[in-house]
Amino acid sequence: MREKSLENLIKNLRRLPTIGPKTASRLAFHILKMPKDDVVSLSQAILSVKEKIKFCRECFNISEDELCRFCSDETRDRKIICVVEEPKDIFVIEETQKYSGIYHVLGGAISYLEDIGPEKIRIKELEERVKRNSVHEVIVATNPNMEGDATAIYISKLLKSHNVRVTRIAYGLPVGGDLEFADPVTMARSLEGRVVV
Amino acid sequence: MREKSLENLIKNLRRLPTIGPKTASRLAFHILKMPKDDVVSLSQAILSVKEKIKFCRECFNISEDELCRFCSDETRDRKIICVVEEPKDIFVIEETQKYSGIYHVLGGAISYLEDIGPEKIRIKELEERVKRNSVHEVIVATNPNMEGDATAIYISKLLKSHNVRVTRIAYGLPVGGDLEFADPVTMARSLEGRVVV
Repeated sequence: MREKSLENLIKNLRRLPTIGPKTASRLAFHILKMPKDDVVSLSQAILSVKEKIKFCRECFNISEDELCRFCSDETRDRKIICVVEEPKDIFVIEETQKYSGIYHVLGGAISYLEDIGPEKIRIKELEERVKRNSVHEVIVATNPNMEGDATAIYISKLLKSHNVRVTRIAYGLPVGGDLEFADPVTMARSLEGRVVV
Repeated sequence: MREKSLENLIKNLRRLPTIGPKTASRLAFHILKMPKDDVVSLSQAILSVKEKIKFCRECFNISEDELCRFCSDETRDRKIICVVEEPKDIFVIEETQKYSGIYHVLGGAISYLEDIGPEKIRIKELEERVKRNSVHEVIVATNPNMEGDATAIYISKLLKSHNVRVTRIAYGLPVGGDLEFADPVTMARSLEGRVVV
């Protein structure tokens, strides 16, 4: 019904997450109205991110160089490795400004439902790093859900023989939240994890 | 803090409507993970829409040819012109399958707040089309808000001397809606516009 190039753009935009048919159409019409320079810039930015970004050969974080900014930063503590599922999780941890170790990106989590076993994510590579660099602590910061927990337990068992402390980030109530709206599972974890003040 | 090409993509995505910082970042990471072919396809679709689509020389709808699909369609009734603010509004009207006339795209609406006078939108071009083609009816389908109404009134006065019926799309309750949730202004318009059944 619409112009072919417009239909094609809408189809391409709809492949992106959070973009439904209405948003795709709205974005497409906006792009139509944008100055040519901005359109070229957007189009090239999309291509360039795919062309330039590769994975750090050490921790598998995204990087424009062989080693990512954390692995190549001499001031970071190499004896602590924080394990995350995806590169984007690193930014959340960096924003706290409370962590000065390095990272390890698994590229997913163990999921029995989705048939993702430990061999499908970068757990072997983690074990090798721990052995090679005599790491003191591995903080498992996988997502706070069933898959993340399963992955944490697997890693903890696996590394038991390597004389390394394996910890898991804490469950509890979000800061600034409201007790009234806490779900019972989180509330239970918050009680379990209570600390002396 | 992030890779330069990633930062640049996020910056470009944030210029789009409905895309805040979180969505931009999510989309960028998704694009990173997409197969190369899909990324190339998205990037080219964006460029191509800007390169291929121009405005219909008759009604100013978007078109890949000199004349848009409606102006070049011999089966459409040339004696009725439906006036809309933007090309995308045409799709909403076409979806009803109740309209067989042609269109006129103003490219906006009169707005005293934003200093958009009648000379800034394509009202003169509408008048010329009405004169040239001895049009019977002009249906003003500008948005149902203050600017749309002001534009409708302006067009109605302007075309008074040209022996053409100028109508405005009806205000009322949306079909399938709930009286309980109708706002008082819409409810009042719905009462005013009541019809004999």
